[in-house]
Amino acid sequence: MFEASAQDSDTVTAQKLRDAALTDRFGYRFVETLTTTIGQRLAGTEALTRASLLAESTLLAAGFDNVHRESFPITAWMRGREEAEVTAPSSQRLVVATLGGSVATPPGGVETEIVVFARYSQLLAAAPGSLDGKIAVVTEAMPRVMDGSSYGAAISIRRSGPSEAAKRGAIAYLHRSLGTDDHRLAHVGATNYLEGVKRIPAAALSVPDAQQLARMAALGKVRIRLVLTPTSDEHAQSWTVSGEVRGSERPDEIVLIGAHLDSWDLGTGAIDDGAGVAIVLGAANLIAQFFGAEEMNYSGPAYAKMHADDIPHIVLAGEADFGARRVYTFLAPAGAMNTPFLQTLADTLNPLGIFLTRQPATNSGDDIAPRHDAGVPVIALRQNGIDYFDIHHTADNTFDKIDPQELAQATAAWVAAVYLAFQSELDFRKAAKDFKN
Amino acid sequence: MFEASAQDSDTVTAQKLRDAALTDRFGYRFVETLTTTIGQRLAGTEALTRASLLAESTLLAAGFDNVHRESFPITAWMRGREEAEVTAPSSQRLVVATLGGSVATPPGGVETEIVVFARYSQLLAAAPGSLDGKIAVVTEAMPRVMDGSSYGAAISIRRSGPSEAAKRGAIAYLHRSLGTDDHRLAHVGATNYLEGVKRIPAAALSVPDAQQLARMAALGKVRIRLVLTPTSDEHAQSWTVSGEVRGSERPDEIVLIGAHLDSWDLGTGAIDDGAGVAIVLGAANLIAQFFGAEEMNYSGPAYAKMHADDIPHIVLAGEADFGARRVYTFLAPAGAMNTPFLQTLADTLNPLGIFLTRQPATNSGDDIAPRHDAGVPVIALRQNGIDYFDIHHTADNTFDKIDPQELAQATAAWVAAVYLAFQSELDFRKAAKDFKN
Repeated sequence: MFEASAQDSDTVTAQKLRDAALTDRFGYRFVETLTTTIGQRLAGTEALTRASLLAESTLLAAGFDNVHRESFPITAWMRGREEAEVTAPSSQRLVVATLGGSVATPPGGVETEIVVFARYSQLLAAAPGSLDGKIAVVTEAMPRVMDGSSYGAAISIRRSGPSEAAKRGAIAYLHRSLGTDDHRLAHVGATNYLEGVKRIPAAALSVPDAQQLARMAALGKVRIRLVLTPTSDEHAQSWTVSGEVRGSERPDEIVLIGAHLDSWDLGTGAIDDGAGVAIVLGAANLIAQFFGAEEMNYSGPAYAKMHADDIPHIVLAGEADFGARRVYTFLAPAGAMNTPFLQTLADTLNPLGIFLTRQPATNSGDDIAPRHDAGVPVIALRQNGIDYFDIHHTADNTFDKIDPQELAQATAAWVAAVYLAFQSELDFRKAAKDFKN
Repeated sequence: MFEASAQDSDTVTAQKLRDAALTDRFGYRFVETLTTTIGQRLAGTEALTRASLLAESTLLAAGFDNVHRESFPITAWMRGREEAEVTAPSSQRLVVATLGGSVATPPGGVETEIVVFARYSQLLAAAPGSLDGKIAVVTEAMPRVMDGSSYGAAISIRRSGPSEAAKRGAIAYLHRSLGTDDHRLAHVGATNYLEGVKRIPAAALSVPDAQQLARMAALGKVRIRLVLTPTSDEHAQSWTVSGEVRGSERPDEIVLIGAHLDSWDLGTGAIDDGAGVAIVLGAANLIAQFFGAEEMNYSGPAYAKMHADDIPHIVLAGEADFGARRVYTFLAPAGAMNTPFLQTLADTLNPLGIFLTRQPATNSGDDIAPRHDAGVPVIALRQNGIDYFDIHHTADNTFDKIDPQELAQATAAWVAAVYLAFQSELDFRKAAKDFKN
């Protein structure tokens, strides 16, 4: 697809893999099957078990070596009913989604006055006791940005908000969804209760509902009735699935790429993170087909904990967990900046419209973080996330949102990066260590 | 805002009114209050009664003459629970909305196999008995177009589909929402049962859910459980509200502009049709403020029936019922094409980016149609509807979707058109009659 000048065979092979990925649909078909036949696959549920079986059978059928499906214990949290309405000054239905990990309201719900904070910092500035018996509502907006960095900036609103509201006397907590859309669909996600603080029920409001509450509250007192009935099962199990493409030259070196198979329950887990699974699976499959050479693990979350012995052997790790759109930049492993590996990779990705960011990768994703912390160098391929937070934890997270061409471009970037890392003589661990020192 | 050359005083006044509308926010503030303090206002409900009181008090406060709030009897239809899920081959939740006028399922719902039709014509071609005991599902898509004409082309799918499916033995009916979005929000709207055909429960699927069912059905048999519990009240009442700006020169001539105050129940009725109310109210208010001259009625639906005596006096009628975006073209009353009135109007609207369509207006909207049928000439101002059917009968029909600048442009177009029609010596009725003959 793009012209090669006089280049070494690794460069030519990387180009061939990249170009093959642009028309390959292996990953796309996998995420279609995953989302169509299984749909949502919340961690700890039977649906995720079926998804893990599908992933396992797909890896086996594609000829991967050492395919493993392993379980690990988790607490499963399950959504129940979620009803919210304004009861005064006039009756209006509200669209909410219970936060993951939230406790339930009493069965009959709670019904009380709300206190609206336009900024989360205003809630943090509120005095103890000032929210006694009230529902705290934070309506702060999350801005739309391409790299998704506004999510990290806003996440305390969801993670810490319930406990911060409870400290000040609130009996329940609502916040404007951490989302950039304007639809009547709430964005879920996990909340974390602080130790020693009363656990209060918490839910996200859709963006228009949060705006409506802000307008209503500006006119006078507003009361809300809230019924949330989530449940938990502390004895559930979840799954990780892995497969390998075995190498011969350096069989003890592992390049690890992963994505998470589980999903939130409102959509069908297409862009978060079926698309990531499709990208790494598509890339791995092309490498397996092409030459069945170096060693590669295809991994889900919890892999690091279960494979602690592998960690010293992982030379490079990467994770795809940011949707289905095209890659626009990549971040090199620390210390790799002025190496032939990186120059070849930059040249190979340039025709895809991908540029090299000048800062090294410090983290490739949540699931990779434990490995990075353990000294594993990482590479990061950043996808266009301009509309990722329109969708990612909502009911809109469905297969139709995946553009196969953009997914293919991301897969092309990954296959080239992974292949060149396999073939590279560069000691990524040593380079990263030298870089730090 | 735009320059006037040597022109008559009507032209200058029309320009002033137009330019005043561009910064006026009277209509915008009304729709904000309407949607915030009342929200949804389904016909026949107490919420619509409150909305009619708000409209009445607004017209009185703005100094309109002859303000009337009149009730008329209707059958109120109320949404109940609506639950749908795929039960086989795997459990998946579906997003549906019961069609207006639909009967309920049995209390425990129905659970049976589906038959999917990619085109509505395929359902119509199905043999009697071929759907016995099944749920018919039509997944035909409605294309996105600027003028909304695809809605009229598709509307039989919703209006007639349930009876056509019932004729062939189906026990329930689902169709892909008549919408152009890709969100997990269903589009409601009325269905019409045929006389003498069994009435079966019917609902719209969100677009992604319809696509998911099509994919699932392509893989094998699919079963759905459906619970719909709507109810009806045959003895409800609805409201129309009207006000006048009284003229002096031709007090027996009426220029009638209207919009509908009621809404579907899932959103807050902002773009359908709070925005239309805002536009005609804003235009009328500017005229009332400016000179309190000619006679004008501000009207809701059912006005024609209740004011049959007025019909011979209505010289021109128009309706705003296509959202909150800018006007891009206007259609002249029949027979008015080469008149000074039209040339002045075209010149006045041109700086707003509005062109004159060469075909005359044949209909300005559903509520105007009875008057047009009764010989009343109409004028049509067409708004950009490129995303109107993303939203119009969904939960997304909320205030945040209204751009005040675009609403102001539409109001500016209306105020100029209405003012120039008031002032015109043209006999619109005679012109229309001559045009027909």
